[in-house]
Amino acid sequence: MNIEMIRAAAARLEGHARRTPLLNSPFLDEIAGKPVFVKAECLQHTGSFKFRGGWSALTGLDPAKRTGGVIAFSSGNHAQGVAYAAQMHGVPAVIIMPSDAPKLKIENTRALGAEVVLYDRASEDRDALGDKIARERGLTLIKPYDEPLVIAGQGTCGLEIAADAQAQGVENADVYVCCGGGGLTSGIALALEADAPGFTARPCEPEGFDDVARSLKSGKIEHNDKLTGSLCDAIITPAPGELTFPIMHRLCGAGVVVSEAEALKAAALAYQRLKIVVEPGGAVALAAALFHPNASDAPNLIAVCTGGNVDADIFAQALSTL
Amino acid sequence: MNIEMIRAAAARLEGHARRTPLLNSPFLDEIAGKPVFVKAECLQHTGSFKFRGGWSALTGLDPAKRTGGVIAFSSGNHAQGVAYAAQMHGVPAVIIMPSDAPKLKIENTRALGAEVVLYDRASEDRDALGDKIARERGLTLIKPYDEPLVIAGQGTCGLEIAADAQAQGVENADVYVCCGGGGLTSGIALALEADAPGFTARPCEPEGFDDVARSLKSGKIEHNDKLTGSLCDAIITPAPGELTFPIMHRLCGAGVVVSEAEALKAAALAYQRLKIVVEPGGAVALAAALFHPNASDAPNLIAVCTGGNVDADIFAQALSTL
Repeated sequence: MNIEMIRAAAARLEGHARRTPLLNSPFLDEIAGKPVFVKAECLQHTGSFKFRGGWSALTGLDPAKRTGGVIAFSSGNHAQGVAYAAQMHGVPAVIIMPSDAPKLKIENTRALGAEVVLYDRASEDRDALGDKIARERGLTLIKPYDEPLVIAGQGTCGLEIAADAQAQGVENADVYVCCGGGGLTSGIALALEADAPGFTARPCEPEGFDDVARSLKSGKIEHNDKLTGSLCDAIITPAPGELTFPIMHRLCGAGVVVSEAEALKAAALAYQRLKIVVEPGGAVALAAALFHPNASDAPNLIAVCTGGNVDADIFAQALSTL
Repeated sequence: MNIEMIRAAAARLEGHARRTPLLNSPFLDEIAGKPVFVKAECLQHTGSFKFRGGWSALTGLDPAKRTGGVIAFSSGNHAQGVAYAAQMHGVPAVIIMPSDAPKLKIENTRALGAEVVLYDRASEDRDALGDKIARERGLTLIKPYDEPLVIAGQGTCGLEIAADAQAQGVENADVYVCCGGGGLTSGIALALEADAPGFTARPCEPEGFDDVARSLKSGKIEHNDKLTGSLCDAIITPAPGELTFPIMHRLCGAGVVVSEAEALKAAALAYQRLKIVVEPGGAVALAAALFHPNASDAPNLIAVCTGGNVDADIFAQALSTL
């Protein structure tokens, strides 16, 4: 992985992915005690940053492979990103999703033209299942994070953060990123290293699923004990990736861990102060910025709100915290 | 009013107002049966397009007048736009608000440094009250719509719609605008006349408060029978303005009227498909685009989602329609 792969992905995404805005509010600055900027990646096509990686992978594939179709496994956001990118290319897509994924994500993935195969998150190995179907049907597997084309696509979000924050006069900042397998975090870290040397990426996770924070601390890949039972479903993965972890270990600051209640409260504040819809897993970085500001010495915080695909009952639960 | 005043306002707003994104979703296109684009003006500073007019007015005032302070009357969005613009200029602001305005709008206006004076919407004349306080304290009144500097500021939204939609290949469109007194609608209409001759502005209103639609039909200013009792509080005004009506009469297509239930459903779909928070009054244009597509012969519809300052209980009510 290198910055040139991210710049190449940015060229392929130009005119197809949205350049999402960098938002702020004096009310949020007051809570954190310092300026907070929010990269509203929930406004990306399909409601999360995952469209960047999906489009980058589809457009980066050998054309013959692309025509044969693609397969992906995902709790929902990667699913929709890949499904929409495949639909726009007119190629088939099979998506392996956990049976407990939010209904909205499953329905949207189907509506975007993909064939959805459900599996049990607690008892089945999604990697093995994905490999099997890919072999049987001759589909190309697009992994959710441990894939260079995907990391490159997610990294384009970091290029935009670097350019837009510096255009607003921000020269030093910690960039808080909601982190599952580390595709977005490692891509952003590489982009910041090249284009914003005063910015440091910080992976953010929910309590009980802090594999990346522990891995960064121990210096080797650590696993989560469990993979279910969190409202932050979007960013629950077994462990950081073989490709993403070394990048995060080299470039990222320490991980920040927040409670589920803090994630819900951050989603409510994003509703109230920024007018954006953020799912609990997508609000973890904003929760870290607002409620753990002392985890950072940086004079500015930038939080990536990574996705907004949340069922209405969960969102109503978040609003009830206001 | 002319296009040069709008271009001058755009120069004053550059780097201060947000260039809000033009969003879309295949799911919304399917409902309307044609492409629908959404100008997400709820993402503007203070959560509505009104910051444009407020900033335009503050920066366009004679410096001596500006230093003496400003006064505005508003159900909430103009209040916040003017209050924030005044705070950023370090000048005092008094805001006259109806006592039944959403709590969030009243609280935000105070938090942005303004002095709030409440009045009874059914029994008191806000114009007379505003004039009185302005005279007593030597404040400059910034009217919510019938003021050239304000119309010019709102018109900058139309310049962005023209540029961004045409950049996406849209050459012919009806531009649906949530319409109260007509400041935004007339400003957008002037901008489209200059920069997007294939685009036509269409004022959109809630049932029972369709003064603009009736005025356009009769060719003279018509009034609403009542001024209370709508969830679409943001766009309830007595009648189109003396300045705004002739512009709308010359340039706009017929008005489109939607039910309150349609506005709530449109707010829910904006949540689900675009990940933006829209208040009922700010969702009226999207409701017109989605549920009254046959009101337009245009091949493309562009809806301006004008604001997102909605109390959580009302938003939860909108979500319950999904």
